[in-house]
Amino acid sequence: MKTWERNIRKVVPYVPGEQPKGEKLIKLNTNENPYPPAPGVRQALLEMDFESLRKYPDPAARALVDCLAEYYGVGADQVFVGVGSDDVLATAFLTFFNSEKPVLFPDVTYSFYKVWAELFGIPYETPALDKAFLIRPEDYFRENGGVIFPNPNAPTGLFLDLSQVEEIVRHNPDGIVIVDEAYIDFGGESARKLLDRYENLLVVQTFSKSRSLAGMRIGFAMGSPRLIQAMNDVKYSYNSYTMNLPSLALGTEAVKDEAYFRETLEKIVHTREKAKKRFQELGFTFPDSMANFIFASHERIPAAELFSALQRERIFVRYFDAPRLSNYLRITIGREEEMEALFAFLEDQVSGWKP
Amino acid sequence: MKTWERNIRKVVPYVPGEQPKGEKLIKLNTNENPYPPAPGVRQALLEMDFESLRKYPDPAARALVDCLAEYYGVGADQVFVGVGSDDVLATAFLTFFNSEKPVLFPDVTYSFYKVWAELFGIPYETPALDKAFLIRPEDYFRENGGVIFPNPNAPTGLFLDLSQVEEIVRHNPDGIVIVDEAYIDFGGESARKLLDRYENLLVVQTFSKSRSLAGMRIGFAMGSPRLIQAMNDVKYSYNSYTMNLPSLALGTEAVKDEAYFRETLEKIVHTREKAKKRFQELGFTFPDSMANFIFASHERIPAAELFSALQRERIFVRYFDAPRLSNYLRITIGREEEMEALFAFLEDQVSGWKP
Repeated sequence: MKTWERNIRKVVPYVPGEQPKGEKLIKLNTNENPYPPAPGVRQALLEMDFESLRKYPDPAARALVDCLAEYYGVGADQVFVGVGSDDVLATAFLTFFNSEKPVLFPDVTYSFYKVWAELFGIPYETPALDKAFLIRPEDYFRENGGVIFPNPNAPTGLFLDLSQVEEIVRHNPDGIVIVDEAYIDFGGESARKLLDRYENLLVVQTFSKSRSLAGMRIGFAMGSPRLIQAMNDVKYSYNSYTMNLPSLALGTEAVKDEAYFRETLEKIVHTREKAKKRFQELGFTFPDSMANFIFASHERIPAAELFSALQRERIFVRYFDAPRLSNYLRITIGREEEMEALFAFLEDQVSGWKP
Repeated sequence: MKTWERNIRKVVPYVPGEQPKGEKLIKLNTNENPYPPAPGVRQALLEMDFESLRKYPDPAARALVDCLAEYYGVGADQVFVGVGSDDVLATAFLTFFNSEKPVLFPDVTYSFYKVWAELFGIPYETPALDKAFLIRPEDYFRENGGVIFPNPNAPTGLFLDLSQVEEIVRHNPDGIVIVDEAYIDFGGESARKLLDRYENLLVVQTFSKSRSLAGMRIGFAMGSPRLIQAMNDVKYSYNSYTMNLPSLALGTEAVKDEAYFRETLEKIVHTREKAKKRFQELGFTFPDSMANFIFASHERIPAAELFSALQRERIFVRYFDAPRLSNYLRITIGREEEMEALFAFLEDQVSGWKP
């Protein structure tokens, strides 16, 4: 090893879900929305002022911040935007988790939390979910350097009732509590409603799932002006201009079209509830997901084998080779016809499965 | 102060240049390119596949990486891309500057270096430029935790000859040397040519100036596969999907149109050289800039006063209220007619200036 190599930061990076290429594949592996963005987004793309691309965008991303503030009924000083919710969450880790005490998050959860904690040298502990994969609020009532959990949780899809979320926040007046609501629009109730009462609560959401804009990289946080100011100070110390002009132009249009947003969500929830019945009939068990995916395990067929069989059929789902998760598949809710193709294959295979 | 506030990271954020709004203003304050992006960029915008925005972009940004690798004649494993060169540089600080020894950069330079060092708790020292604002290579020949400097330097515009850059790299076999070449295309010679010989050299460039795409936020680094791998590991530990689909689509088009790129650069260099003569005639002194701006001081008129007078005329330039800089204005090279308006005002004002 050369001397200069000793100073290189050692990390075990997050591995994103595969982006398979080619035609005729069914992609149910990265929780994308199966429907296109709102029609206004297309219009905004066509109408973008090409010449203005030579200029820096507004570093405060005001157009998008104001639009979100109005939509969610909070102040513009209560909204932070970033390059996807990963950027928002990473900034929050860097801004808020600077204690000697451990940050707490569930053992089974979004795998990036551990990666950020290790990147920034933040101590952490991971209370175990119960046997049914539920978060036990009381695990978060002890001294800590901050709390973060997704709601609904990933990759289980389980939603923690808002009264229980509030219990966790109420027991942590001395730390900052982050609720990561990437999947909240598919059926949960947002902790946004608690913001009036808790200055130390941060709620993070994304345009990547419910708003069909994973390709644009837009995430946001809502919290007290004090928290948002602190995040902006760190953002301006890292990269002042994060949101490019297309993100600002297209993001605002995605928020404005409420009717399209509701319609798309309803279709996905409808497909999800139908899928639950089909999975059950086929001998799968799964937590009762409130997200746009189902985390399912078969009574007889090992998940790893099913994963490979599906992949051979060009049906891509997500498999986590990790403790407690290795006999499950995380299956994104696709369009009706994509789910039909999935179930046609499963019905054909499951009854006569030979390992 | 509430208990949770104690864990908030304390930073003094970078203050980006003003983005004044309204019609009929002349904007020479943020070193943007006065000409629009290449025509192919407009075409790419119109042809973007709207439906694909629902999907995550390629986290490896391969289209853009491959395109840059081909253009610059390096391997695809020698190119890293990020959300503007600030993102690339911040990632480089986080990845490479993890020594107990101080990182070295000039006292007068891009003000973000100090901000990143403080954000990440990196020790640093700032050798002074000489009286003519030149970097003294020998100041960087001592033990350190890494070296970074812009070439041409900001806000002076002075270019350090490539043989001197090599001297600095050659004297630092045990550390990583970053050359920040945001302005290199306007007349300097890139340290890219040294990459074959120095595995510990990183060269950072941007699409924001010479490629007229400040609004898209695209920056990149070139270096040895070992350095690029280390940066990607950190990137994948922070935010896997940084480059959105429009950045990938439009960025590649900007690289492909070599003829437009050269033509635009020639126009700007021509305008800059003419501007130098005019400034001299008007009693200004300035380092001999190789960038797309001139850092000028008047023999009689205090820069702060001139800054205000110009602002009243809706001509925006950049003023730094900092040691050694406070009697200078940094003036971006605009279009010919913008520079004419600037000089018409200065010619009218300078001779009969009353404070």
